Parts: sequence; C-alpha cells; structure tokens
Amino acid sequence: MTLPTNTRQWTLTNKPTATPVLSGPNPTFTLETKPVPSLTDNQVLLRTLYLSNDPAQRGWISATVDPVRLYRPPVQLNSPMDAVAIAEVLHSTSPAFKAGQRVRGMTGWSEYAVLDAAKCQPLPALEGVAPTQHLGSLGPTGLTAWFGITEIARAGPADAVVVSGAAGATGSMVVQIAKHILGCKRVVGIAGADAKCRWVESLGADECLNYKHAAFRDELVRATDGFVEVYFDNVGGEILDLMLTRMKRHGRIAACGMVADYNSERSQTYGIKNWFEVISNRLEIRGFIVMDFLAEKGNAAMEALAKGLAEGKIKVDGQNETVVETAFEKIPETWMKLFEGANQGKLITHLV
Amino acid sequence: MTLPTNTRQWTLTNKPTATPVLSGPNPTFTLETKPVPSLTDNQVLLRTLYLSNDPAQRGWISATVDPVRLYRPPVQLNSPMDAVAIAEVLHSTSPAFKAGQRVRGMTGWSEYAVLDAAKCQPLPALEGVAPTQHLGSLGPTGLTAWFGITEIARAGPADAVVVSGAAGATGSMVVQIAKHILGCKRVVGIAGADAKCRWVESLGADECLNYKHAAFRDELVRATDGFVEVYFDNVGGEILDLMLTRMKRHGRIAACGMVADYNSERSQTYGIKNWFEVISNRLEIRGFIVMDFLAEKGNAAMEALAKGLAEGKIKVDGQNETVVETAFEKIPETWMKLFEGANQGKLITHLV
Repeated sequence: MTLPTNTRQWTLTNKPTATPVLSGPNPTFTLETKPVPSLTDNQVLLRTLYLSNDPAQRGWISATVDPVRLYRPPVQLNSPMDAVAIAEVLHSTSPAFKAGQRVRGMTGWSEYAVLDAAKCQPLPALEGVAPTQHLGSLGPTGLTAWFGITEIARAGPADAVVVSGAAGATGSMVVQIAKHILGCKRVVGIAGADAKCRWVESLGADECLNYKHAAFRDELVRATDGFVEVYFDNVGGEILDLMLTRMKRHGRIAACGMVADYNSERSQTYGIKNWFEVISNRLEIRGFIVMDFLAEKGNAAMEALAKGLAEGKIKVDGQNETVVETAFEKIPETWMKLFEGANQGKLITHLV
Repeated sequence: MTLPTNTRQWTLTNKPTATPVLSGPNPTFTLETKPVPSLTDNQVLLRTLYLSNDPAQRGWISATVDPVRLYRPPVQLNSPMDAVAIAEVLHSTSPAFKAGQRVRGMTGWSEYAVLDAAKCQPLPALEGVAPTQHLGSLGPTGLTAWFGITEIARAGPADAVVVSGAAGATGSMVVQIAKHILGCKRVVGIAGADAKCRWVESLGADECLNYKHAAFRDELVRATDGFVEVYFDNVGGEILDLMLTRMKRHGRIAACGMVADYNSERSQTYGIKNWFEVISNRLEIRGFIVMDFLAEKGNAAMEALAKGLAEGKIKVDGQNETVVETAFEKIPETWMKLFEGANQGKLITHLV
C-alpha cells in the first residue's frame, strides 16, 4: 500500500475557560491537514482506529490550570489534541513492531501519527477481548481504578465503600475490584441514571443511587447508615461535599477526578464547605495519578486484572463501553459526550 | 477554710449558628449559680484559677455540627460550658491529690467544680515555667502542634513548611518544633498582624506574612517559590484554598483547625475551590485530633517538648501567651477574643 503523506488532525486553537466551544469564530479545536513526518529509526507510522475519551483530557487543555501545576505537560496551542488510541501499524522502523499489528499509543486526534516505538504498547493477547478494552478496563482506566482502590484507599474486607461516577469507565472497575477482588463488605455506587445504576448493581454493587433523584440526599444517608470507611471520588463538587459527612472516623478518600466541575467557570465551581468533617473525623484524603504507579507496579496490576477477568470477577462484555462510530470530522462532538453523562463505562470513539 | 457550697457557672443556653451572642434575650451563655456536689471517693473539689481558651470549643457548642459527627460529646444545652483549666485543689478524697496543689483538669466555666481524680493531671515540676504554660505550649496545645507536625505532616529536614495561625497557640509551637527540633529547611508563618509576624520570626520562622496585607497573595507566592512540602493548617477557608496551589507534588497537609469559619453561617462558609490541585499534585490531606495520640505517645511527646525547652529550642517566656485578667462575669467576652485575632500565643483567662 501507499503510505499517507498527509493527515487530518484536530488541533487546539483556543483553551477553554468553561465548556469547550465546538463552533463559531473561536472554537476550542480546529480541523487541519498537516504533512506526515518521515520516520527515523525505531519509529512507527500509525493509523488511528479507536480513541480513548477521558475527562482528564479536559485538564490538559484548560485555560485556568497553571501549566506548572498540571500533572503532565498541557497540550500546546496549535498542537494536535492528545489522546490515547488503539492504532494499526502501517510502517515500522523498529524491530519491536511490524506492519498490520495493533498497538496502544498516544496518536492524539490525528488520522495518522508517527510515534517512537518505545511509546507504543503491544496489545496483550486475551482471547475474546475486544481491542477497545485495552483503552478502558484493561488499560489506563482499569489501572487507575486498581491503584486508587488498592494503594490509595487501601480498601479491604472490613470496609464499606462508596464510588461516585460508578457507571463510568473508572468507577465501574472500582466497583468490581472492590466487591469481587478485595471483598469489601459493602459497595455503594452513585451514578446519573436509573439504567446505569441497575448496570452497576449487576456488576456487584450492593446498591447504586441515582444522584439526579430528588431524594438522593436521603437515599445516600440511608445507604451509608453507620458511615463508610472508603470513598472513591470521580466527581468532586457537591457529591464530595456530601460524602465528607458520610465518612467514618479515620475514613479514606481517594481523589481521582472531579468531572462535575471540569467545565465550570471559576466563579461557578462548587466550593467544598464541609471541611470541619475532615478535622473532626480525622479523614485522610489523597489525590493520585495512575502514571505514578506504572513503572514499579504496573505489570503486577495488569496481571491482577487479567486474573480477575479469567476468574469472572471482572466483566469486559461490551456493556462496559459505549462505542460511538464517529467520522473524523465529529471527534470533538463524541468527546463532549463525556460531560453529558451519555456513556456507560468507557466512551470510545470508533473512527469510521 | 470553709468549703464552698455554691458555685457560679456559665451554662450553654443557646447553640450558636454563627457568632456567639453574649447579650440580648437569647444569649449563647447564661451565668447561673448552682450547688456544689458532694464529693464521693477519689474526687477533688477544685477552684478554677486559669481557663484555657481554644477555637475548638466553638465546635463543642455548634448548632450546625451534627453531634454524632463531632470528635467528642458536644456541650449539652443547660450544662456548664466546657474548658480546660489550671485549678487549685480545695479538698480531695483521692490519695493522688492534696489540698493546695495545682492541677490541670476540665472544670469548665465554673468557679468551683468536682472532678474525678483520674481526670486531673498534676502539673509537671518545671522550674521557671508559669503554670499557665501547662494549658498551652506544654499542655494540650503543644501536643497538638507536636503530633500534627511529626505524625500527620511527617515534617523533616528536606521539607519547607507553611504554618497558618502562626502566632496562635498551636501555630507558634509548630514553627518552633519544625525549625528547631525537626530541622525543616524553611518555615514560613502566616499571621494577622505585623507585630505578630515579627514575633513568629523571632521564634525561628524564616519569614512570616500578614494575611491582611493587600499584597498577601503575591507575598505568599514569593515566599513559597518552588512550592512547599508541608502545610499545617489552623485556619481553613481562603488561605487553605490558596495553599492548595502552593503545595509541591505529593505535599502533605495537616488539617488541624479552621478558625476562619467557626463563626460563619453555613451560607457564608468559604467553599474550597482548588480541589483539582489535590488530584493533579497528588496531595495528602489528613485531619487529626490530639487526643488520638495521647494514650500511646503522649508521654514521649511531653518529654520531647521538655527537652526542647531545656535546650532553648522552645520558648515559654510569656510572650507566647496573652493572659487576660477577667472577672468571672466576663469569661465569655475574653473567650470571644479568640475570634478577633486579639491574642498572641495562647489566650488565657486569669480569673480575678
């Protein structure tokens, strides 16, 4: 086949202060066509097949986050939007990969991308597992859940656990790991739709509450009677503030995300008021980023997840992902569904 | 001498939702006269000499804190206001104490009180040390500072430390322990008056900033250039929110108090907005209460403080307390000075 010489890509043209803007004179992203660079040694030319959509990406393009305070280099203006992808190797100058192979790598929102081979991972051979699972449950998302609930929250059989964003990519894995691998005595999910809640319960949650219910606050109080040892927080904001009042003494909070406020103007960001609970009930709160754990413990965690999969404790049956067939021109629209509560499990862009 | 049969005492008559109310038809506290109970075995009859004034007392009487969420039983309506005191033993049915001796115990806001001997502590014999120091630097406050900076923040020579409420009873001890005992590489105080700041610097802080300065925010950014590993928080609110942006990756926050908001109506309580910093910079936040540490480690900590005193690393020269001579009728007025920034070091009520 003839190798592509140009690629379409979405570049970051305006850093958003609130909800990203997809149209009008100052859009957040702009579709451009650029030449594909030539390969040097130990590189691969990739064709992007599936894109991972992650709330964390919102932080990478924020106009309000000080770049030096971000956990990774932000996406630069007029650079391609970053994203993890499953891609096909079209050409390789590395002995590690050959044409036709599928890999995981950070292609960004580009049709074609040239990456150093060292920055690509081969997909583990797991029978009956869709390749997209290596972006979600068996990829960075699953590892985020794993390290958050094991290393940060240190959950175990004696613990009752609440998980917010429980029907999301990370939360749904936390529920399964907590209940089926760690044996937590009780797991309560919080999600944004009744159907999602029923799915979270099918994964093993003792119950899952819809935060959009008018009676949610009362339902949470009842579901956390006696208080809980662990809260895995994916959302921040009002639910976090409420959960501070539902933690047992010496309870532990894993601060993983705050999707409730990623698109909020600074003035509209929810302010946490129940701080006295942190002191009075001696709470421990720890923020974390999955990449901190990968070098030392990434392989062991992947083995644990694969074992959970083999033993039927972790389900990757396709209900744990929302795959949206997407024309290249519509990549930002699909990504925005993250903030609309549209996805059950991992939101995947399938480029068609 | 004839033993007293009645005692004046301040009872809690209305739980405040905001600033305690000292006059009018529904005062927070009411002065009453009650009979002194008869002593049973192993008790002491005490005359209160000095009262400890602590921001934490505000939590004990709050109308808005759920009693089951408080770290100790709240003061009940129509019960005497609780307070730690230095008191003189007037009569004892315990072999552990004899009349004329001074002890530390929770007399509350009563002229006379009967306590179980087991709940009184003899004052350590430390030459040249005023008895009031056993309420502050060498008492519960000093231990709060000790456990917060050693066990919770785990500060050491590699750490730059910021301390808010640095001219207060706890903060001024944190500064000295951090700088002179733990050898922290840099200690920055935050206080509410220039004179207080100069005093905090005389205790060993590399610098101390007045948060009432218009340029405080810029001054803090400059004083925390390169960010800091440890923040010891006595105030909560806006300064805590700002400090979240000044923490180094994996920084540690000891959540000791939030005096900035103890008297705030719920609607006026400051909301913490910089939560993304907790995640992105992997911060660890731990609330704590001194009493958790006393049984196991209290004696060792007291020995460490006494050693620091003997070596000149901890100063208890009287500048570290603000002793207010107070008629019994004015106990609440003196206590309220806690929330007016009136005290340097420990605020002590000397009953006259």
